[in-house]
Amino acid sequence: MIIVMSPGASAQSIDDVIGKIRAAGLYEHVSRGTERTIIGAVGDERSLQASMFELMPEVERALRVVKDYRIVSREVQPQNTVVQVRGLPIGGAVLQVIAGPGSVETEQQMQLAANLVRTGGAKLLRGGAFKPRTSPYSFQGLGVAGLDYLQQAARAQGMPVVSELMDVRMLDTFLEYDIDVIEIGARNMQNVDLLKEVGRINKPVILKRGLSATVSEWLMAAEYIAIGGNHNIIFCERGVRSFDPASRNTLDITAIPLLKRETHLPVIVDPSHAGGKAWLVPALACAAIASGADGLMLDVHPAPADAWCDGDQALDGAAFTALMTQLHPLAQLMGRPLA
Amino acid sequence: MIIVMSPGASAQSIDDVIGKIRAAGLYEHVSRGTERTIIGAVGDERSLQASMFELMPEVERALRVVKDYRIVSREVQPQNTVVQVRGLPIGGAVLQVIAGPGSVETEQQMQLAANLVRTGGAKLLRGGAFKPRTSPYSFQGLGVAGLDYLQQAARAQGMPVVSELMDVRMLDTFLEYDIDVIEIGARNMQNVDLLKEVGRINKPVILKRGLSATVSEWLMAAEYIAIGGNHNIIFCERGVRSFDPASRNTLDITAIPLLKRETHLPVIVDPSHAGGKAWLVPALACAAIASGADGLMLDVHPAPADAWCDGDQALDGAAFTALMTQLHPLAQLMGRPLA
Amino acid sequence: MIIVMSPGASAQSIDDVIGKIRAAGLYEHVSRGTERTIIGAVGDERSLQASMFELMPEVERALRVVKDYRIVSREVQPQNTVVQVRGLPIGGAVLQVIAGPGSVETEQQMQLAANLVRTGGAKLLRGGAFKPRTSPYSFQGLGVAGLDYLQQAARAQGMPVVSELMDVRMLDTFLEYDIDVIEIGARNMQNVDLLKEVGRINKPVILKRGLSATVSEWLMAAEYIAIGGNHNIIFCERGVRSFDPASRNTLDITAIPLLKRETHLPVIVDPSHAGGKAWLVPALACAAIASGADGLMLDVHPAPADAWCDGDQALDGAAFTALMTQLHPLAQLMGRPLA
Amino acid sequence: MIIVMSPGASAQSIDDVIGKIRAAGLYEHVSRGTERTIIGAVGDERSLQASMFELMPEVERALRVVKDYRIVSREVQPQNTVVQVRGLPIGGAVLQVIAGPGSVETEQQMQLAANLVRTGGAKLLRGGAFKPRTSPYSFQGLGVAGLDYLQQAARAQGMPVVSELMDVRMLDTFLEYDIDVIEIGARNMQNVDLLKEVGRINKPVILKRGLSATVSEWLMAAEYIAIGGNHNIIFCERGVRSFDPASRNTLDITAIPLLKRETHLPVIVDPSHAGGKAWLVPALACAAIASGADGLMLDVHPAPADAWCDGDQALDGAAFTALMTQLHPLAQLMGRPLA
Repeated sequence: MIIVMSPGASAQSIDDVIGKIRAAGLYEHVSRGTERTIIGAVGDERSLQASMFELMPEVERALRVVKDYRIVSREVQPQNTVVQVRGLPIGGAVLQVIAGPGSVETEQQMQLAANLVRTGGAKLLRGGAFKPRTSPYSFQGLGVAGLDYLQQAARAQGMPVVSELMDVRMLDTFLEYDIDVIEIGARNMQNVDLLKEVGRINKPVILKRGLSATVSEWLMAAEYIAIGGNHNIIFCERGVRSFDPASRNTLDITAIPLLKRETHLPVIVDPSHAGGKAWLVPALACAAIASGADGLMLDVHPAPADAWCDGDQALDGAAFTALMTQLHPLAQLMGRPLA
Repeated sequence: MIIVMSPGASAQSIDDVIGKIRAAGLYEHVSRGTERTIIGAVGDERSLQASMFELMPEVERALRVVKDYRIVSREVQPQNTVVQVRGLPIGGAVLQVIAGPGSVETEQQMQLAANLVRTGGAKLLRGGAFKPRTSPYSFQGLGVAGLDYLQQAARAQGMPVVSELMDVRMLDTFLEYDIDVIEIGARNMQNVDLLKEVGRINKPVILKRGLSATVSEWLMAAEYIAIGGNHNIIFCERGVRSFDPASRNTLDITAIPLLKRETHLPVIVDPSHAGGKAWLVPALACAAIASGADGLMLDVHPAPADAWCDGDQALDGAAFTALMTQLHPLAQLMGRPLA
Repeated sequence: MIIVMSPGASAQSIDDVIGKIRAAGLYEHVSRGTERTIIGAVGDERSLQASMFELMPEVERALRVVKDYRIVSREVQPQNTVVQVRGLPIGGAVLQVIAGPGSVETEQQMQLAANLVRTGGAKLLRGGAFKPRTSPYSFQGLGVAGLDYLQQAARAQGMPVVSELMDVRMLDTFLEYDIDVIEIGARNMQNVDLLKEVGRINKPVILKRGLSATVSEWLMAAEYIAIGGNHNIIFCERGVRSFDPASRNTLDITAIPLLKRETHLPVIVDPSHAGGKAWLVPALACAAIASGADGLMLDVHPAPADAWCDGDQALDGAAFTALMTQLHPLAQLMGRPLA
Repeated sequence: MIIVMSPGASAQSIDDVIGKIRAAGLYEHVSRGTERTIIGAVGDERSLQASMFELMPEVERALRVVKDYRIVSREVQPQNTVVQVRGLPIGGAVLQVIAGPGSVETEQQMQLAANLVRTGGAKLLRGGAFKPRTSPYSFQGLGVAGLDYLQQAARAQGMPVVSELMDVRMLDTFLEYDIDVIEIGARNMQNVDLLKEVGRINKPVILKRGLSATVSEWLMAAEYIAIGGNHNIIFCERGVRSFDPASRNTLDITAIPLLKRETHLPVIVDPSHAGGKAWLVPALACAAIASGADGLMLDVHPAPADAWCDGDQALDGAAFTALMTQLHPLAQLMGRPLA
């Protein structure tokens, strides 16, 4: 930690800071500048808080130097982690596409969707059984029946499934229904009890970015999972909140190279939630692949205009197939063909 | 719902929209403008989704007219709700101050804090036993022991207590420890399962605003609680995320008059989390009262520099007493003395 | 400047950084931590740029310690600056209210407005003759005729005038019409050529905050004016852009105590632009005074519903008088009566 | 315009709104819903303002239906505009890359830069002679000498030049030095006098997006230029301000397909300013091309570590050449080879 003293700080104030550093088991390096004195606290600074110093007299501010995430950090593990989902690698030599409807509606809809998704070339099926809706009057998902329809449709096609877990009490049910990848949604990115619980199991977890989470906070959320022992974590950028109502969210494409540098874990992109309109999805999906993402999560529905939620962002079968056709050569060009 | 057709939309496209409106059990009013045709869907539009229309040919956009919140809306209940906490009114003729440390640390710290809070003139004691920290390496709260210390310290002073509930599985424990007001933190504002659960009990709930929640989303989160039967909801503005690192959060003072107009429920302000620095708290607390807030929630700690978390935003005893002295005549002037 | 080396940085990389520091005429303090080496550059760091170091091998980041603003800083001048406008002090023992219509429309409208403003108790008259509108099809202001109507109406009431200057080529005209206070609008806060020009004259300048300017950038914009010799600068907070469409802008009330700590210059608030609705103005105006602002700038129009622009945020005569009546005791309580 | 009445609005209030619509020369369509009455104003709604209605009794809100931009709109001109710069097309069948240093420093630096840019395969040279810096103590650009060095270096390579115009008084100088493309920077996007002036000449204009401008405001800024007769406008996305300090700005990749749908004008991307770090540029540049951009503007400097400004975002010669090599097959794949 670096402690910056106010201009003209007294010897007493400087000594007090030094005393506090030593009391915490670290030692100091004092650098007297022309305007300000700067004190470095040397040792394991994770035991220090900025506020310990910022509340002392004549201290201007205190800055952390060490990052708070470790297990997920590339400093700790330089080589990429490849998450395996029933034999399908995420974060490896090929790009993965996860596709399916925002919400499971009926048995038939899921079968149609699974068929479209499989035919179009995606390898994993998604479907929401529990939906975190803004309004309590909106469709909240089918619940456990939804998990059942999802799993049935997926097994018929031989695909692993991805579904969102919102409530820690449902984790056992997710395990019972053998949901292959557990998705933590944007609204729960800092639901730390949920993060801790999925950290204790060995299922892969897709961790979506919170609505206005910084990249650093997102990495810390992943660290909550990793610290429990589960290192099978996949980041999913889904757009952040901005001032512009022109799109549902603002896809933060920069987050992809930033994450790929900071962490060894895979990073995928959900262009459907980001843009919020089906016609925007192809441009955003291509941008995601071109910026180095390890895969995509796409909203695909057999009949978007009849979808029970988020229909405006879902691709229909034709649009999905067209997009996959467009993505193939792009993925090839990036040196990582679609799986 | 209002459906705006593209310029030059065909009669067929217009008919299709009309057909869809009628199929949903509503009827239409068609307004042919010089540039665009506009179709109003008349009836209970809550059964409609914008996407149902926006995906149809030659539809430019669809706009909801009716708001999605009802129970919490002032349209439904014009007079103010006064939430009673063990005989203390929140949202009534007097202003309430809730104060205490961000986290419960030790039995002695809570006793000192409770004493300071009581002496300074606040009527409710807060203290966090479960802490939603950004880093898993930060202090996560004492847990159940914290509830115990909090409750002991409060009872010694005859004060009701406020504490944050993060995990739905701890609700019974909160009831067992007779926590008088349950706080839902910013990170859990859209944890809908948690909202639903606290909607089923009859304890008052403080609902903090999400980091980047719109006022409308916040009202909808309250509606999740209200729909379960619990109407004892208190909104707490605690600052929103912005682009400026100059303060921890940006206190959205405008949210106070906006909420007071939209809802009959009480609105309090947490200036400590908003500013993030103790020296900012008095100015923000005064602004909150002057803008019409029903009360304050303040971070007060017997020794901020030794606090286990958020010490830089906590007032010590002297600063808290000084602030209360400053607030008394201001509250009086606003026509609502401090309780 | 503090240069943080990557973990395990080589002696060579550290020597290179030291060489660069010395080449710039400063000297180094090296602090070898358990994880990282930190190098302080001691001397006048204003000649350094972070990028000079961040591009060197094994440098993780470089942090400035010294702030970039000097003349406007309270470090340089601890006591408050009181800006004098024709004998009216801004930033002194009394609070000032500037009021008038967003745009000058007709001779008669300005006379009515000036009369309302004077009768209501404000001491300075504002009126926009040049309007920076989002749309080129919106009313752009009367131009020079507007300055004339404004000045005539003001002189009849013996009031100084405030008007916005958008184009550097109109500065002479503003001086010719003897506009007492020149307003630099939010859209021009970083129009550096305009800032430099108003820095060369001796008229007071109101510097509105840019739509998404940080407090630090705002202080730097003021420094552009001050460096030219004109220290009669008044900051005006008018709300910043946020994600929530519930209000036109988000009034950043925290900016007031932040600025009062960082600078000796006066700070006023424009609650009309911030909220964007007349009914929001009283709550925001009270909050501004309660948080320590030195005055207000209010949109007052004799007939808001007929205003040529921004009518929804203008107070009519009755609402303005009512607000002034509300503000008097509040200002008194804050120890700084309305002028 | 659509006027939404409050629930239970009186016949009188509805009649008043109708009266106001008719007075403005339009006529009404009244749609009485179960909860609210909605009134459509039919005719040229550009003569109406929302505030005209929102201030009337029992009016809840008024919504514009027609967009405020016309000339730049794809509704008005469906086919793409191709801007010609000395025979080089922007927005046509090929993609253009504009490259060069953020600021012109010396004659030699510009010659080196021009050579790198030309060798690397870009067709247009940029260089800043006038720099809008946050701090008045930072390098402000060489001024006119910079235009001279830029033009000399470009002519030696037979390249057209792009440079930023900040001050309307310098326009004649830009014309005299025959600057081929005038760049309007982010800070001046709503400097309407500057926009009006460049609307009167026939040089192509690159209009960068304001720091927190919505796509709609950006289109309106272009309309300011277009209305003067100059339709040679190129949009340049350069990142918007967000809450995350992880990158300098947040590249809004979604703006590219949004603009391509709304306007017939070309759209390019500046990944250097967006990311703020050279190592981020390749990923962002690829994303921009993959999302449908018509070209790129890149910061290229012969010696980034010695750059007088923004060195951390500049590519050196090797990195630029490597990026161009990477972009060639991607552009080819998008069906629009690099020029």
